[in-house]
Amino acid sequence: MNEDVLEGTYKSYFPVFEAHPDLIYLDHAATSQKPLSVIEAIKDQMTFENGSPNRGAHKLSVKATEIYDNGRRKVIDFIGGMDPREIVFTKNATESLNLIAYSYGMNFLKHEDEIAILISSHHSNIVPWQMVAQKTGAKLVYLMVDSEGKMPASELDKINERTKIVTFPWISNGIGTRIEPKRLIEKAHEMGAVAIIDAAQVAGHERIDIAELDADFLVFSGHKMFGPQGIGVLYGKYELLEKMPPFLTGGDMIEYVTCFETTYEEVPKRFEAGTQNVSGVKGLVAAIDFIEAIGMHSIQNHERKLTQYIVEQLKKLPFITIYGAETLADRGGLVVFNVTGVHPHDVASILDDYGIAIRAGHHCTQPLMQHLELTATCRASYSLYNSEQDVDRLIKALFKVRKVFGYDD
Amino acid sequence: MNEDVLEGTYKSYFPVFEAHPDLIYLDHAATSQKPLSVIEAIKDQMTFENGSPNRGAHKLSVKATEIYDNGRRKVIDFIGGMDPREIVFTKNATESLNLIAYSYGMNFLKHEDEIAILISSHHSNIVPWQMVAQKTGAKLVYLMVDSEGKMPASELDKINERTKIVTFPWISNGIGTRIEPKRLIEKAHEMGAVAIIDAAQVAGHERIDIAELDADFLVFSGHKMFGPQGIGVLYGKYELLEKMPPFLTGGDMIEYVTCFETTYEEVPKRFEAGTQNVSGVKGLVAAIDFIEAIGMHSIQNHERKLTQYIVEQLKKLPFITIYGAETLADRGGLVVFNVTGVHPHDVASILDDYGIAIRAGHHCTQPLMQHLELTATCRASYSLYNSEQDVDRLIKALFKVRKVFGYDD
Repeated sequence: MNEDVLEGTYKSYFPVFEAHPDLIYLDHAATSQKPLSVIEAIKDQMTFENGSPNRGAHKLSVKATEIYDNGRRKVIDFIGGMDPREIVFTKNATESLNLIAYSYGMNFLKHEDEIAILISSHHSNIVPWQMVAQKTGAKLVYLMVDSEGKMPASELDKINERTKIVTFPWISNGIGTRIEPKRLIEKAHEMGAVAIIDAAQVAGHERIDIAELDADFLVFSGHKMFGPQGIGVLYGKYELLEKMPPFLTGGDMIEYVTCFETTYEEVPKRFEAGTQNVSGVKGLVAAIDFIEAIGMHSIQNHERKLTQYIVEQLKKLPFITIYGAETLADRGGLVVFNVTGVHPHDVASILDDYGIAIRAGHHCTQPLMQHLELTATCRASYSLYNSEQDVDRLIKALFKVRKVFGYDD
Repeated sequence: MNEDVLEGTYKSYFPVFEAHPDLIYLDHAATSQKPLSVIEAIKDQMTFENGSPNRGAHKLSVKATEIYDNGRRKVIDFIGGMDPREIVFTKNATESLNLIAYSYGMNFLKHEDEIAILISSHHSNIVPWQMVAQKTGAKLVYLMVDSEGKMPASELDKINERTKIVTFPWISNGIGTRIEPKRLIEKAHEMGAVAIIDAAQVAGHERIDIAELDADFLVFSGHKMFGPQGIGVLYGKYELLEKMPPFLTGGDMIEYVTCFETTYEEVPKRFEAGTQNVSGVKGLVAAIDFIEAIGMHSIQNHERKLTQYIVEQLKKLPFITIYGAETLADRGGLVVFNVTGVHPHDVASILDDYGIAIRAGHHCTQPLMQHLELTATCRASYSLYNSEQDVDRLIKALFKVRKVFGYDD
């Protein structure tokens, strides 16, 4: 199936398009649609395999434990790592980032330390660090991007011996520009800082090789890579996780509890308090199976072709301003743009009347928007289930948007 | 259907028993099995209604927002409250308790304040308070229970003007004893403390009336009341939530973010960072619909009859020691016991060979176990899908357990 990128072929894996045949879903970056195999996997788990893991001697509990532990192995393998203990399951990438901020940031940072944040970060990778800075006296230092969303090499100079954390989105959901992670990670390590990658817009789009990247932490969400809502991933280097105190506490993350003292479980269980989301892990594993069956290379090729096509088509329209990188290779699976004379929310709302789902607003990247002097933009984000025909329909509908506002293009 | 408690009738709502016809599931207190309607609701949401709430103008996003907001109304109604803003969705009861500990405890408690904890609490309601005590200098004070798991009235004297928090399980998952919440809540309020109820073993078993209880916080998990894993509930009085700083931070809980400052959304959104688990809320709503269709009263009656029957039957066995309250009215939907001469883990393991799922161990209540001088127990917990025939099979199998260990009863 790897070569077949014709209209409808990939769509047929996703029952949402059967239910809504006219839907053009261009909001993948917010949450992805789910293939049948993921939906069925969760249904099966809830029907036949439901139990509480780790705690029981009975078959359903053992099965739940097996699903959960296999999930860890599947995920570490998916991101090119070796040690399943380096995978912590959370509820979403936001919790993963908060876990790092609370457990690592609050405990290992001090007054005058610096946290270097790429300005194009999502709020979930900014606000937790503001809290850490406030509590510890550490200083936030922003690494700036140019108008294309690219970071000039000179920004690396802001990472110095005071820097303890360097954090950035591999692909920014606010402008769609890809950052070369290696140089940031290397500079961080050179200065003795840890490097955190927000890979929410990368997981499920292209191969992640954590061994090669050598990042200290990497986070992503299941629901943005064909998996279910409610499950997220934190990758952390074992030696770092090992020295971090727990974040959420409660059942299943303890070794021994007395009234006044508690000793904690080994990594990664130490970070997973409460009943684990086995359905979520089952769905995430099914999503990885789906991605592997299609082939990551095919997904990436498909998205690249779409990126090329949508940028080409949008550029033809004189009333469209496209943001993001000029070079296609520096773009991820989303295009941010504005329509002259029409507010992004009106664009999104009118497109919705034509069955086209895009997103409008600040995309949880207000500091980036302020930096680029924008208040809001339109974002079309896509994946496997989108086609050039979808883009054609978007383009046609954009003319109609303009027409509503009295422009006769 | 309210009157029909015959073998098989309620079981037929739960497809797990079709898949495993010989399964006797007595581990409801760890995680409940799911009715078909809940499984189908989640499948439908993932198939037809998947979107990211609050952020989008398109139909799927609007639909997701609607599911999520309706969920809040459904849950506040389910617990007898009025204001949906008092419901915060979390991933499980453990996160709910951690949210209170981090956001309320860490910020409003100080040196020499006291936190009163019922000794029969689950670890998730102990370990977070140990952390709060460690960070703030507040003192943990345990309210003790007698050998039946009941709290003597004299323990109320430990709640005084230094007490800032009183927290307890309404029904202890470790011994199955029910606490009268009102007197604890009233005493807490008399002394100016806030009262927290862990209702994980109550939600879905009997009616919760938060208006009548007047508790300040109440927590429970979806997966223990026929709902999916990955969704939990925090009820908090609006005026308390309103003065609490955020816990997890990121997207969707902010009002405005600049590089160095953030203003936060209103309650309850302030506490729900990241993409919401709409599937989880959809499943939780379906679980409440299921409970309401059967009738809470019928569920409670069914469980009471089972409690009476299982206690009677176990008491006939000379090799069984039952723990918990003597009076049936003081018992929840679980029975804790030991088998003379056989370790609880061996009991659970051998019962599993006969298709009977119980739990063995400390049930995440080690301080209670230490207090009762127990190392481990067996726990049979049940609900709607259990019958007297299940109990009969358990009793028969317990003789077999003893036989394996050489006893000829």
